[in-house]
Amino acid sequence: LKVFSLNSNLKLAEDIANHIGTTLGKCTVSRFSDGEIQINIEESIRGCDVYVVQSTCSPVNQHLMELLIMIDALKRASARSINIVMPYYGYARQDRKARSREPIAAKLVADLLETAGATRVITLDLHAPQIQGFFDIPIDHLQGVPILSDYFEAKGLEDIIVVSPDHGGVTRARKMADRLKAPIGIIDKRRPRPNVAEVMNIVGNIEGKTAILIDDIIDTAGTITLAANALVENGAKEVYACCTHPVLSGPAIERIDNSMIKELVITNSIPLTEDKNIDKITPLSVAPLIGEAI
Amino acid sequence: LKVFSLNSNLKLAEDIANHIGTTLGKCTVSRFSDGEIQINIEESIRGCDVYVVQSTCSPVNQHLMELLIMIDALKRASARSINIVMPYYGYARQDRKARSREPIAAKLVADLLETAGATRVITLDLHAPQIQGFFDIPIDHLQGVPILSDYFEAKGLEDIIVVSPDHGGVTRARKMADRLKAPIGIIDKRRPRPNVAEVMNIVGNIEGKTAILIDDIIDTAGTITLAANALVENGAKEVYACCTHPVLSGPAIERIDNSMIKELVITNSIPLTEDKNIDKITPLSVAPLIGEAI
Ligand SMILES: Nc1ncnc2c1ncn2[C@@H]1O[C@H](COP(=O)(O)O)[C@@H](O)[C@H]1O
Ligand SMILES: Nc1ncnc2c1ncn2[C@@H]1O[C@H](COP(=O)(O)O)[C@@H](O)[C@H]1O
Repeated sequence: LKVFSLNSNLKLAEDIANHIGTTLGKCTVSRFSDGEIQINIEESIRGCDVYVVQSTCSPVNQHLMELLIMIDALKRASARSINIVMPYYGYARQDRKARSREPIAAKLVADLLETAGATRVITLDLHAPQIQGFFDIPIDHLQGVPILSDYFEAKGLEDIIVVSPDHGGVTRARKMADRLKAPIGIIDKRRPRPNVAEVMNIVGNIEGKTAILIDDIIDTAGTITLAANALVENGAKEVYACCTHPVLSGPAIERIDNSMIKELVITNSIPLTEDKNIDKITPLSVAPLIGEAI
Repeated sequence: LKVFSLNSNLKLAEDIANHIGTTLGKCTVSRFSDGEIQINIEESIRGCDVYVVQSTCSPVNQHLMELLIMIDALKRASARSINIVMPYYGYARQDRKARSREPIAAKLVADLLETAGATRVITLDLHAPQIQGFFDIPIDHLQGVPILSDYFEAKGLEDIIVVSPDHGGVTRARKMADRLKAPIGIIDKRRPRPNVAEVMNIVGNIEGKTAILIDDIIDTAGTITLAANALVENGAKEVYACCTHPVLSGPAIERIDNSMIKELVITNSIPLTEDKNIDKITPLSVAPLIGEAI
């Protein structure tokens, strides 16, 4: 068994290797002068079960191509199995044709991974669980909710309500609420008439409660910060937020900083870069979870 | 028949469309806040033969993913055929395992294009013609030599010798020499003993002649500028250079500018960006050539 890391999540990969009592395999992933990716695997992997750790977070196309070229190299070097550990699955939001002539990039990514030679995928909180069906190889779908719930449980918060920032996330909120033995609420955004601003209608009794907002991905943080502010305006005592995948692009950090969110709890499926590391944000590691799955 | 352009070669795509008497199909290729590619095809293509113009030049991974996602969208929108016009084929130099555990990225790219749904590929001067065999779909392999030769012929140069800057390019030099009714020469780089500088041995009589160096790709321009300087030092009257694919990365422009190359003739398989546009460089269009092939 060998674990290799590409460029997206070196720290996480080390922690995973540690967890299962090994060290990272030797390989260098660099770029030629023209930007093409160059991969050198520096130890024999013939006959080995190889695990490659790579999230396809930003720069997504770069990270995806690193992964595909690595898989190709491992295949040609006679690896016995090529197991992709992809904590964050990029392009997961392009998972259906919402309008005519749209691509389904999430399916394309699945096909590309299989074509390159992946034999199994381990991933975490897919944006839509249906993406599992895009693969013809085994896929292990891990859950971030237990890690996030345990953190809040250990904090000893009282009088909690778990709130989903939109309809799509209610099942996830329900799972967390079960673990925390709390009720759930939903932010029910609605446009009363065309061309009229959306109304934030809060379903559930939040008066005086400690609200925990949960989502799978926080990208530009528009939804989650508006939701947090609406909760406080409508009587919540304080608002925590959490998510599995901290994409945090564009104005996200500024919005979170300026919002009523007291603390944002995330996982390291996507590493927090220096410029995104603010006091409010608490990262939790998924290394033990993934280590177990390997 | 519809022609679409992605982001690598908009001007060339327009010229190709023009050449075959049509206009470019409407589509927008943009990026979400997190860098994921978003493609909207804005006209029906159901039942159409679609041509997509895209070189996988720098940023290569970005351009390749645009192409794959576009192919996916076209396939799902029921295009009758999806023809990829790829004047420059990125990753073509990773075409074999030169050392253990190397990937063969050129084959991977072929597999990815087919998996996405391409039904035919039109390309130009592959780094190795063997790459044609990496595809199971039809591939049209166009040649840049006639365009480059015609330019030099029209210039009315006298007493020409066509020189290959290395052994790998002799066949190409021979083709150009045939068209220009000229002899060929070869730069025969050789390391006399280990850890001793390479010697530039020139095979062929260049004394007082007008030398034309020809290569398929000029990347960092190290080889071609050293060759040009060696030719002048060894008695050539003047030195022209030409190539099909002007990758021109890193120090290329500075090297060319400071070299003995009098004029560098290229094609627009890769567009010349502003910062690469120096007086010495003459770009020729492959639009008519590709127009004929469509
Ligand atoms: N990278 C992205 N950033 C923002 N929006 C996206 C991205 N990828 C897909 N989408 C859009 O997000 C929507 C899917 O999100 P959802 O409705 O939450 O499943 C679709 O309308 C997509 O067009
Ligand atoms: N993008 C690139 N830039 C520079 N060298 C490359 C690139 N891709 C592949 N190579 C190397 O170039 C060599 C192949 O070039 P050639 O011998 O001319 O076919 C191989 O040793 C490759 O490792």
